[in-house]
Amino acid sequence: MKIAIFGTGIVGQTIGKKLAELGNEVMIGTRDVSKTMARSEKDVYGNPPFSQWIKQNPKIKLGSYAEAAAHGELIFNATSGMASLAALQTAGKDKLKGKILIDISNPLDFSKGMPPTLTICNTDSLGEQIQRTFPELKVVKTLNTMNANLMVNPAKLANGDHHVFVSGNDATAKMKVTDLLKKWFGWKEVIDMGDITTARGTEMILPIWLRLWGVLQTPMFNFKIVK
Amino acid sequence: MKIAIFGTGIVGQTIGKKLAELGNEVMIGTRDVSKTMARSEKDVYGNPPFSQWIKQNPKIKLGSYAEAAAHGELIFNATSGMASLAALQTAGKDKLKGKILIDISNPLDFSKGMPPTLTICNTDSLGEQIQRTFPELKVVKTLNTMNANLMVNPAKLANGDHHVFVSGNDATAKMKVTDLLKKWFGWKEVIDMGDITTARGTEMILPIWLRLWGVLQTPMFNFKIVK
Repeated sequence: MKIAIFGTGIVGQTIGKKLAELGNEVMIGTRDVSKTMARSEKDVYGNPPFSQWIKQNPKIKLGSYAEAAAHGELIFNATSGMASLAALQTAGKDKLKGKILIDISNPLDFSKGMPPTLTICNTDSLGEQIQRTFPELKVVKTLNTMNANLMVNPAKLANGDHHVFVSGNDATAKMKVTDLLKKWFGWKEVIDMGDITTARGTEMILPIWLRLWGVLQTPMFNFKIVK
Repeated sequence: MKIAIFGTGIVGQTIGKKLAELGNEVMIGTRDVSKTMARSEKDVYGNPPFSQWIKQNPKIKLGSYAEAAAHGELIFNATSGMASLAALQTAGKDKLKGKILIDISNPLDFSKGMPPTLTICNTDSLGEQIQRTFPELKVVKTLNTMNANLMVNPAKLANGDHHVFVSGNDATAKMKVTDLLKKWFGWKEVIDMGDITTARGTEMILPIWLRLWGVLQTPMFNFKIVK
């Protein structure tokens, strides 16, 4: 499948690498291709710069948001939450039309120190904002509640016995994404939370997630809904 | 132990009944004793009125917030979140002094329809508000992330293989509450999240909890942190 991934960070890289390994044609979208390739410093987590990473993954293409959106039958939003709406705006509504957007982003604001706060929550969510701003997209919020390595390989932890959530207004799109989560990444149980307003709940799980990371001293954990 | 429970709703009743069964001297605190006893209608969940319940639990006393606070060596806050600060104010700072407050409340606002929103979140929490307003209390936030029946009997679900969190500034108080959660209710693993600011995370889990209740069609579920 032809897939676009918005965002050159660790989430975009991890998803892109996995999907390329599975034989998909991946194009990563960025705001400014030459700036992204010129960056030579490590990111805040100590990961090597994108230019180095993409050399090790030569099957993956890099393009502008508009080029990536035109390429992808399916789009992943793995930008930082505060940049997501602008990234989609840059891509252009005509190139997004009718496509499924798998929205992994979280509206985290790191500008006021750690732990970050949410720029939007409680009575709205980033997932809803994206859906409202781009009604031509079928937004499915998912994968935003765990570490990138677990997103693409849940079996790394407890043999995959933990959960991922999906929220979205389009039932067919949600079903398709659910199937892809199982087929591509090996998720065993995907919980359909309901319409896109339920993204409030999954985005608002981030504050406890971030604190648990500190308590457990590892990001390799996830929520299981025991019932 | 002499225990005060603020709040006559299902949470206060469930905790009170369990603690009395274990041989503790329980007094439930309410704003207006005669009004509470005069109420004859069922609550919004269809539970019988308090006056009927307390007849079936004759060992449990009912008093004003001030009387209950004076009685209890330990206080549970099981009032609805929007009423918690006023309830504690009514009890009086001198009667709260030096005591542990186990805060189970959530700042839920039902006035704008279902699902409720939070009256406070993200950059503050009800747990923090209570601690700030009553520095003479040792506030330990816990048990606010599951159904009342599971609070006092976690073994009802998956043999107790799921989690409860504690947040608070006083390490000794947190340790004592952790021990009591294990001894009284049978909790196996209690996760110490850190200081009272981590109550933001556990209170902000409510939106996903409330949606999961709808999805799973039962409130008898809980979060397990798989690591």
